[in-house]
Amino acid sequence: MTLRALLCTVALAPALLAQEGQSLTEHYRETATKLIDAALADNGGMDKLSYLCDRIGNRLSGSPALEKAIAWAASQMKQDGLVNVVTPAVRVPHWVRGNESASLIEPVNKPLTILGLGGSVATPKKGITAEVIPVSTFEELDKKGKAVEGKVVLFNVPYEGYGRTVTYRTTGASRAARLGAVAMLVRSITPVSLQSPHTGALEYAPGITKIPAAAVTIEDAMLIQRLADAGNNVTVHLEMEGRTLPDADSANVIGEIPGREKPEEIVVIGGHIDSWDVGAGAQDDGSGIITALEAAYLIKKLGLQPRRTLRVVFWTNEENGGMGGEAYRDWVGDQVKNHVAAIEMDGGAEKPAGFGISGRSDMQGMLSRVREIGRLLERIDAGSIQPGGGGADISPLMRDGVPGLAVRTVGTHYFDWHHTRSDTTDKVKLEDLRANIAAMAVMAYVLADMPEGLRQSATSTR
Amino acid sequence: MTLRALLCTVALAPALLAQEGQSLTEHYRETATKLIDAALADNGGMDKLSYLCDRIGNRLSGSPALEKAIAWAASQMKQDGLVNVVTPAVRVPHWVRGNESASLIEPVNKPLTILGLGGSVATPKKGITAEVIPVSTFEELDKKGKAVEGKVVLFNVPYEGYGRTVTYRTTGASRAARLGAVAMLVRSITPVSLQSPHTGALEYAPGITKIPAAAVTIEDAMLIQRLADAGNNVTVHLEMEGRTLPDADSANVIGEIPGREKPEEIVVIGGHIDSWDVGAGAQDDGSGIITALEAAYLIKKLGLQPRRTLRVVFWTNEENGGMGGEAYRDWVGDQVKNHVAAIEMDGGAEKPAGFGISGRSDMQGMLSRVREIGRLLERIDAGSIQPGGGGADISPLMRDGVPGLAVRTVGTHYFDWHHTRSDTTDKVKLEDLRANIAAMAVMAYVLADMPEGLRQSATSTR
Repeated sequence: MTLRALLCTVALAPALLAQEGQSLTEHYRETATKLIDAALADNGGMDKLSYLCDRIGNRLSGSPALEKAIAWAASQMKQDGLVNVVTPAVRVPHWVRGNESASLIEPVNKPLTILGLGGSVATPKKGITAEVIPVSTFEELDKKGKAVEGKVVLFNVPYEGYGRTVTYRTTGASRAARLGAVAMLVRSITPVSLQSPHTGALEYAPGITKIPAAAVTIEDAMLIQRLADAGNNVTVHLEMEGRTLPDADSANVIGEIPGREKPEEIVVIGGHIDSWDVGAGAQDDGSGIITALEAAYLIKKLGLQPRRTLRVVFWTNEENGGMGGEAYRDWVGDQVKNHVAAIEMDGGAEKPAGFGISGRSDMQGMLSRVREIGRLLERIDAGSIQPGGGGADISPLMRDGVPGLAVRTVGTHYFDWHHTRSDTTDKVKLEDLRANIAAMAVMAYVLADMPEGLRQSATSTR
Repeated sequence: MTLRALLCTVALAPALLAQEGQSLTEHYRETATKLIDAALADNGGMDKLSYLCDRIGNRLSGSPALEKAIAWAASQMKQDGLVNVVTPAVRVPHWVRGNESASLIEPVNKPLTILGLGGSVATPKKGITAEVIPVSTFEELDKKGKAVEGKVVLFNVPYEGYGRTVTYRTTGASRAARLGAVAMLVRSITPVSLQSPHTGALEYAPGITKIPAAAVTIEDAMLIQRLADAGNNVTVHLEMEGRTLPDADSANVIGEIPGREKPEEIVVIGGHIDSWDVGAGAQDDGSGIITALEAAYLIKKLGLQPRRTLRVVFWTNEENGGMGGEAYRDWVGDQVKNHVAAIEMDGGAEKPAGFGISGRSDMQGMLSRVREIGRLLERIDAGSIQPGGGGADISPLMRDGVPGLAVRTVGTHYFDWHHTRSDTTDKVKLEDLRANIAAMAVMAYVLADMPEGLRQSATSTR
């Protein structure tokens, strides 16, 4: 449904529209051109990303680096002209990795490359030495039954997309522990490896013994599989010190361009400021927060002030707890109803393709209006608007009915780098970051400025 | 020039030809079909490669693992039906890595990922702490002149193909030392990195102070560059224990299918049995030696005995000295003149594309005959025969006029894995290994069996 069609079906005050009958595409063409031009020449985004990733580095919840990043972000928001900059406190889980190592003991002695899963418990001090049993599905595990008692289970699961495979990382430890396994290894959730272990969160099931859990590289998983298939008893030794300390102080970072007409209505854009404790959190999710910040900065710099408030939020603790997203929802209280839309960018800053959108109601209406905005991004091939958006940090808002959008990229290499030592600044290409800033700036500005809010539209056609 | 055309121009005894007037393509069609069928169903090649790489592992010159590999190879050759299996002694350089580490000290403190270059000297015990100066060409280095005195030089050279870029790794240390640098770092010679350092040999220039030299990852090289470009004094700390011990005992491994008519004439096929001390030497060059061995095994298994001797050679010490290739040349003495051709496979076992060939004379004639053989490989898309073959191990033979061939592959990922911890068995795909075995079996068999030898042909048309 186009805006024009919508105007025929519902009674709207014509005063809300700058020029009645204009599509959003027509109405915002000139502004979008300026925003895109500015973004495509922008260097500030890359400078900020480099500072965050090169100078502050990775920033796991509870780490001094995350505190430093939060202080820097608040300061940078102010420097970029955002107002009402605040850092409301959030208590976050505090897991620390400690030292960890693993090696094959039988039939050969060689080191394995591991990365403990976030939240994993430690091994006993002297480590665990046990036979490792590779399985490739939960069904195969369950068939083994008590045969894995006292053993280490390896989930050697070929990658079939992140969403389909990550369940082995998150739930595998408790699935194995239920049968008596003493530790769990999981093949890293990635399509490509150069001996690259990928960490990530695990979820211990209530009431099940917590066993140490680590990711191994594709190479090491396949080695163990080959050795086992050849009839060997394969034995590993595992030493891990991971432990969960008392919750730590952290904070979300929030800054705004206040709306010129309806400051109480809010469009939220952002990503998460925390990262895993390896690499530099450049794609995940330095690129997301910097894209949001730089988009707001450019809007401000061009002298634009949208009708509604544009709020930039850097959520904390997305990776291992999600407390930042929940805390933001609590912090806004009843004002959640004034959230017109929330855009989360947490899929990296490869070449942008467009946006996904999810909502509780009137998806066709919202899709159609957001597609009008998307057409403004065709110039940079980022205009594809698809159903299905959102993200971990905005899911608490979406639960309460706020339409959720996500930046979509080509996604060529994101999961090669995700949660690894190689998620570093160099992985973000300047031209791609610029295009993401352009896409975010246009989408955010139009959502915040469009005469009739996205949600009002949704409501009005319900 | 086809065989038929050649027959019209030179006087040859018709008895040399099985069926006068037939091209090699026609003459060997049936045999090639059998060899390819056998190779494409072969599992023995992968089993042997797995044993070598998974159970014995990497095998640097002077290491116990290389000795173990040599013993295993000789035994495996015998088991595979080769005769005259010998392991003539070769003295090889014996470099050991020891421990090594590096970190940024200023403007941030973070570990760097390095891999010392083969042959590098150690740092002083307490390490070297110095400013690092990135350059991207030798010209840029030379312009810096004495400004690098007392500093660490980083060659941050974007990859432009292995051949064009590797000179920074091999000669960079002495180029920097000549200007007074105290250590040299080189961006790993690879198109792709997941924090992956690539080792490889360096060559110290005579009369120039030997300084420690290590590869850094693309990520770390770019980080140092960004920090320096931002105006920082970038300081690194480097500790390396690399040292060269007295030469060690090693050996080439040689086995044969003796020729049925002209056993004194020899076609050599092989690769190198040594590897760097990281990963498993699977593509480099486990895949080369196993392809040669399995090709000979299948020829034997099919009851074929070529007219000439087919000799499989696993050269030692290709990676850091080339003593195996030289020793083989010395070992054959005057019999080098009886070497009809030498095929080296040292570019990995990705999907084969064909062969390259080099020779001192009559390249057109040789190309044309080898292309007749290549046509037998069109069925597996491996029939492309191009000028330019050879390799480090057979270069001493080629110096003396032996035509040199090299297996050519699609080469998609070889340099992603080359000289790294990720050069492991899983990188060799079963179907690709089989196709390489097929290509090698057909090429080797026809060269060894063709009525008129490749070299005689070359000579006769000179």
